[in-house]
Amino acid sequence: MSVETTILEMAKSARAAGRELSRCPTDRKDAALLKIADQLEADAERIKAENGRDVSAAKENGLSNAMIDRLSVTDATISDMAQGLREIVRLTDPVGTTSETWIRPNGLEVCRMRIPLGVIGIIYESRPNVTIDAAGLCLKAGNAVILRGGSEALNSNRALAEAVAKALSDANLPETAVQVVPVREREAVNYLLQQEETVDLIIPRGGEGLIRFVVENSKIPVLKHYKGICHVYVDESADLQMAEEVCFNAKVQRPGVCNAMETLLVHQSTAPEFLPKMAERFAQAGVELRGCPETCRLVSSAQPAEEADWYAEFLDLILAVRVVENMDEAVSHIATYGSNHTEAIITSDYNRSRRFLREVDASVVLVNASTRFNDGGQLGLGAEMGISTSKLHAYGPMGVDELTTTKFVVCGNGQLRS
Amino acid sequence: MSVETTILEMAKSARAAGRELSRCPTDRKDAALLKIADQLEADAERIKAENGRDVSAAKENGLSNAMIDRLSVTDATISDMAQGLREIVRLTDPVGTTSETWIRPNGLEVCRMRIPLGVIGIIYESRPNVTIDAAGLCLKAGNAVILRGGSEALNSNRALAEAVAKALSDANLPETAVQVVPVREREAVNYLLQQEETVDLIIPRGGEGLIRFVVENSKIPVLKHYKGICHVYVDESADLQMAEEVCFNAKVQRPGVCNAMETLLVHQSTAPEFLPKMAERFAQAGVELRGCPETCRLVSSAQPAEEADWYAEFLDLILAVRVVENMDEAVSHIATYGSNHTEAIITSDYNRSRRFLREVDASVVLVNASTRFNDGGQLGLGAEMGISTSKLHAYGPMGVDELTTTKFVVCGNGQLRS
Repeated sequence: MSVETTILEMAKSARAAGRELSRCPTDRKDAALLKIADQLEADAERIKAENGRDVSAAKENGLSNAMIDRLSVTDATISDMAQGLREIVRLTDPVGTTSETWIRPNGLEVCRMRIPLGVIGIIYESRPNVTIDAAGLCLKAGNAVILRGGSEALNSNRALAEAVAKALSDANLPETAVQVVPVREREAVNYLLQQEETVDLIIPRGGEGLIRFVVENSKIPVLKHYKGICHVYVDESADLQMAEEVCFNAKVQRPGVCNAMETLLVHQSTAPEFLPKMAERFAQAGVELRGCPETCRLVSSAQPAEEADWYAEFLDLILAVRVVENMDEAVSHIATYGSNHTEAIITSDYNRSRRFLREVDASVVLVNASTRFNDGGQLGLGAEMGISTSKLHAYGPMGVDELTTTKFVVCGNGQLRS
Repeated sequence: MSVETTILEMAKSARAAGRELSRCPTDRKDAALLKIADQLEADAERIKAENGRDVSAAKENGLSNAMIDRLSVTDATISDMAQGLREIVRLTDPVGTTSETWIRPNGLEVCRMRIPLGVIGIIYESRPNVTIDAAGLCLKAGNAVILRGGSEALNSNRALAEAVAKALSDANLPETAVQVVPVREREAVNYLLQQEETVDLIIPRGGEGLIRFVVENSKIPVLKHYKGICHVYVDESADLQMAEEVCFNAKVQRPGVCNAMETLLVHQSTAPEFLPKMAERFAQAGVELRGCPETCRLVSSAQPAEEADWYAEFLDLILAVRVVENMDEAVSHIATYGSNHTEAIITSDYNRSRRFLREVDASVVLVNASTRFNDGGQLGLGAEMGISTSKLHAYGPMGVDELTTTKFVVCGNGQLRS
């Protein structure tokens, strides 16, 4: 079978499975999720053996240690995946819930009913646990899913898919509700992105290159985020002790993720007291500072920042620092260099807190809290499917609700349009 | 200035205007809408004169009478546009409203705030009134808009844009909040579709060819509908008098629009009584019937339907008719041939009404009412921006709310992530 035919057949059978899932009550979906969790644990040895083949090949091909680390499936990984599925079972199923009904002057009763999207395609890089996390969330929301992981993880993902298929079949759900693209060829992605008749949504997860490729080539709507250039603005009126703790947490707690702070903005009247102390704390944690001229004047260890540093997602212990004249300059800096991801202000001023929340355009805006809270679990959505920085459909962390849509339901007694 | 530079500059200035509009309170937006309405009426003679140039050129170029009719701007058209704007003023402004707040165990307060999308690009065909309707709705929702109408309407659209710009300036809003692409070159559309850094959403309005072109070439998310192949299923338990009235209304009241019925499905036990009478009523209205073999047996005037007829959006006084064994067959016919637009059942049976509403996948599903109600005004959303049959972001008629999105707003008192 050609790659094109393979993808076409997968998409068609996913569509059929999606129709069946859309009518499936919550308890049957939850039973299937629990069976998948059990099956993963039962198949642990086989999964690890298949993963071992991927890891050996990756080593032979000279992949970096970081890549091999992300690729590796251990007992702990399998247990985390199973636990993740059991947590998805506890989420509320949004499918079939309706909004308040409104009644039109002619007596028509109208409401919106939440329904699955249909078929979701996920395109991701090496981490095999995404296969299970994504499948679980899609299933809970009543969607069929087509998973295309990195080709270096193909044996692992196939082994995971086999466990899922067995569990789905045991639970009397269609096996094609969760499918892993079974071929390595890159053109499989191109064909998948053309299936607009059968696939409703594409979610790419990975580096900026992968995401740009998907956006440029997809006929199907895409939910994505490119990068997180997150700012904390320490206002004139900030509690400086709180500011220090929040900024330290935002930069250092986990610097390699998209909701870590990349640029610190400090009000000019706060900077002389705040920055030297903050810089010392950062220095102890090994954070390199790249500052505006005023920052460099106040902090001798800071290197001069270049224009590119304000646009940079360092994902590392590097921080750009800029002293601003006032809040307007901070908001305008964020509008110019920000990525609509996560923006925080530290302030004790009522009006400025409100202005910041309203005027800053980002998927999550915070007052007096760390940028690291832009996360589905932390905000109370449960497991998430990534963070969207495009505004259509979902802006911010995408939980199970964001994997659904609504249709209009209209009940009448013979109304005609005149 | 090259076409590419023109579009780039428009998109940049629209982005800046969008930022300003996003902070603009409702009363200022409403004042601007009313000023636009007044200005259109004041400029009526100039607008009609410019439109006259477009109409003359269209006649010289041999455009069809239907096209020329859609292109023409009369006093009545201008008055309708002004009235439409005054109705938009009465809609509730969704911007800045927040959802219920929830509180996380660590004390973080989280809610969602409704915000404008930013910059919206509208690509449409000859009707110049779309220029004003679309601009008004976008403005109300706090968005800047770039309008690209048919090149045959360029003089008309420029004249309208001039009136809008004057009114915006009088209302102290940025003139670049509403811009008409000022050139005829087709590549202007291609350049517009590449501005993903500055434009948040593209809405194409027009024929299937235009919409497919936009979907295939856009890097920006697109809200669209291709076509409406709408069904009415007359169930075994239907009130036949009601069924006749609803089917007649759905087909004949305005056959050239997307929510008109294109295929009638009738339960086999109802068909012998219902179809001959219904066919007679249709015949009087000049409706041509294309039926399945059973339909042709029951209705001598019906022509045999071909496979293509089940997929057809006739937009005319033509109707495909099929007798089905049961509701399963009706639902399955709709899943195969439908376009996710509008689907109705006529029934007196409680269980079947519920099953139809849940199982049929369309942007609007109805019981005992005409398909013609799939319309923003009819469903109570106020003015609409078209009907979306893609499920992401909006499914069904798009009102002012669908031109906004939500961000997460988080208030803390120094929370850190551990």
